[in-house]
Amino acid sequence: MKKGIAEVPGIECGVGFGGIKETKKEIKRPDLLVITTREPSEFAAVFTTNEVKAAPVKVSMEVKGKISGIVANSGNANACTGEEGIKDALQMCSLTSQLTGKGRFLVASTGVIGVPLPMEKVRKGITEAVKNLGKAKGEEPARAIMTTDTFPKLAFCEGSRFVVGGIAKGAGMIDPSMATMLSFIATDAKVEKELLERALREVNETTFNAITVDGDMSTNDCVILISTGLGREIREESYQEFKEVLKEVMSSLAYQIVKDGEGATKVARIRIRGARSREQAREIARKIALSPLVKTALFGCDPNWGRIIAAAGAARKGIVEEKLELYIGNFLLFKGKKADFKEEEVSLYMRNSKEIEITLNLNLGKEEFTYLTCDLTYDYVRINAEYRT
Amino acid sequence: MKKGIAEVPGIECGVGFGGIKETKKEIKRPDLLVITTREPSEFAAVFTTNEVKAAPVKVSMEVKGKISGIVANSGNANACTGEEGIKDALQMCSLTSQLTGKGRFLVASTGVIGVPLPMEKVRKGITEAVKNLGKAKGEEPARAIMTTDTFPKLAFCEGSRFVVGGIAKGAGMIDPSMATMLSFIATDAKVEKELLERALREVNETTFNAITVDGDMSTNDCVILISTGLGREIREESYQEFKEVLKEVMSSLAYQIVKDGEGATKVARIRIRGARSREQAREIARKIALSPLVKTALFGCDPNWGRIIAAAGAARKGIVEEKLELYIGNFLLFKGKKADFKEEEVSLYMRNSKEIEITLNLNLGKEEFTYLTCDLTYDYVRINAEYRT
Repeated sequence: MKKGIAEVPGIECGVGFGGIKETKKEIKRPDLLVITTREPSEFAAVFTTNEVKAAPVKVSMEVKGKISGIVANSGNANACTGEEGIKDALQMCSLTSQLTGKGRFLVASTGVIGVPLPMEKVRKGITEAVKNLGKAKGEEPARAIMTTDTFPKLAFCEGSRFVVGGIAKGAGMIDPSMATMLSFIATDAKVEKELLERALREVNETTFNAITVDGDMSTNDCVILISTGLGREIREESYQEFKEVLKEVMSSLAYQIVKDGEGATKVARIRIRGARSREQAREIARKIALSPLVKTALFGCDPNWGRIIAAAGAARKGIVEEKLELYIGNFLLFKGKKADFKEEEVSLYMRNSKEIEITLNLNLGKEEFTYLTCDLTYDYVRINAEYRT
Repeated sequence: MKKGIAEVPGIECGVGFGGIKETKKEIKRPDLLVITTREPSEFAAVFTTNEVKAAPVKVSMEVKGKISGIVANSGNANACTGEEGIKDALQMCSLTSQLTGKGRFLVASTGVIGVPLPMEKVRKGITEAVKNLGKAKGEEPARAIMTTDTFPKLAFCEGSRFVVGGIAKGAGMIDPSMATMLSFIATDAKVEKELLERALREVNETTFNAITVDGDMSTNDCVILISTGLGREIREESYQEFKEVLKEVMSSLAYQIVKDGEGATKVARIRIRGARSREQAREIARKIALSPLVKTALFGCDPNWGRIIAAAGAARKGIVEEKLELYIGNFLLFKGKKADFKEEEVSLYMRNSKEIEITLNLNLGKEEFTYLTCDLTYDYVRINAEYRT
């Protein structure tokens, strides 16, 4: 069995079925997830920077102090739902508190935008999830927050005398009018709030904030990290180790999201090296990762270096054309001008690789940044152009 | 016959066939265009802001003083071609000067990136074009700079005692590894350099700089405006009229480019109203216009207002969710929260419209901005994912 958040000491998960998303197909996939901690626990969280924030994001952002867990639903984003949406999100928290007899909960939702939460169904699902607390293991918690994800996303890593485990959902903006990347991560390490927040912020930069499927920013994104405190205590001197283990888990979850990108057949790792600053490297990597022309070329297994160079220049971060060196895999394609390479060989490498390495050396400094992206395919268009029914 | 740049008094056009783009198909479409002015003429020009600039852009940017015309080729962008590329671009100018007996020329290229110009073919084409000067009328000059454009783009407008006529090419980044939007415009009005530059800059903001097909910025973009000076003199007091006429022509050309966007079946006009500043309106309009989720929803005729609201929020320009009013056509879809509308009716409007109006009122101020975009379709992916052969 694969391990995820349920395998972190001090964490219990329960899932329930409310029937929130009305589908014609009779799939009874759980759509409610309740995560509880044995004791009130420190947490850190990062939320979408979209100015239009879903009600659960607004509610969770206000939570201070320790928490007893998370309640989340799939099938409805509770976004753009006005005052009513806020009340519904608060009710999800209070109902979970009441049923578990525990204190404060964070709340998250993912699904259709603009439709009021069917609260009767939500209550039914929460009640069932609380009843089943402790039973959901391995993949099960991840399955309860899936929408059009094609596989559950979970990761687990052991440090010395502590573990980190997490789950995630997301595949871009996923379903027609869905809009969420959610990730819940826990550790049994005892980490004080400030350090926990720093770790989440720092690792988030190079993991969840370094991936893109379609560049569309969600109204519901959130990443929550809980420290149940049952394991080893992490202080300044052990911070690096903790961060490494956390990074292992978050990198894995981020990778799984890109791999499950809508319609995606390939993951590409866009590595910018030799930059003057990390920010320069990041912006150029991001511009390349977002370019529809680069993404369609990945789909076509076309070593179209001109599009990559043009996207890098479009970032306007001070590159020097003459100094650029571009590699796809180990093939040098450009060195100030077109290099001597066999197109068929590079195309063959692209065809045979599920993961394509693109490395652009700016030859300006020593900083670097890596972004993950996926290809743009017919299926992306199909998934997103289909009329909602 | 439709009128374009060749119908502006003082302008002569000639086209030639060099065979620059090697194709299997035996289409002998002209690929060289020479435009000359009767007398040395004032001009204004704007170029791509991509840091990777094609050789002809670098050469044209250095041109000062009056010019005698433009020489342009399609089929090869002369971009990422190093020192050799610069020499080739300069040679295009000097050969045209020599053959016409006229002074300074601007140069432009569009086509494949990274391949040296086949200069023998280019010289053959220029020679033929110069020989034919004065013969290319109406659509013909526009045809000579087409790549995968599906129709020639031209526009013409009369002011009082002056005219403005222009041509353009572009359909996003067009062909695999092509990358250009070119537009050449002329007026017979006598406009001094400073005023001409101001007019081009101002009108460009709301026309060519307010359209997107795929958000990919080219290495070769340029818009050139020539004043042959044979007509009425434009001064400060007649500037507004001149600007209006110029805007008519440039708006039309910009619209034609979006309409011919790769794989596009719909044009959408994204109108942001009630903004605090034009810049706020522009950035929000642009974010919506670039969103792959909005663009696929347009293709699917799906009135997916959640994606539009989410994209507006993602621009992070200070919108207030509660104040937003969103219309598609005349249908109110959102007013702080979901409005009462029939989805099938809006979808029907979208199905029946070649041009879809999306209006978002921020209700914060009085400024506005309109952006043109097109839908994202299977054909976009097909055109751009096909392996270059």
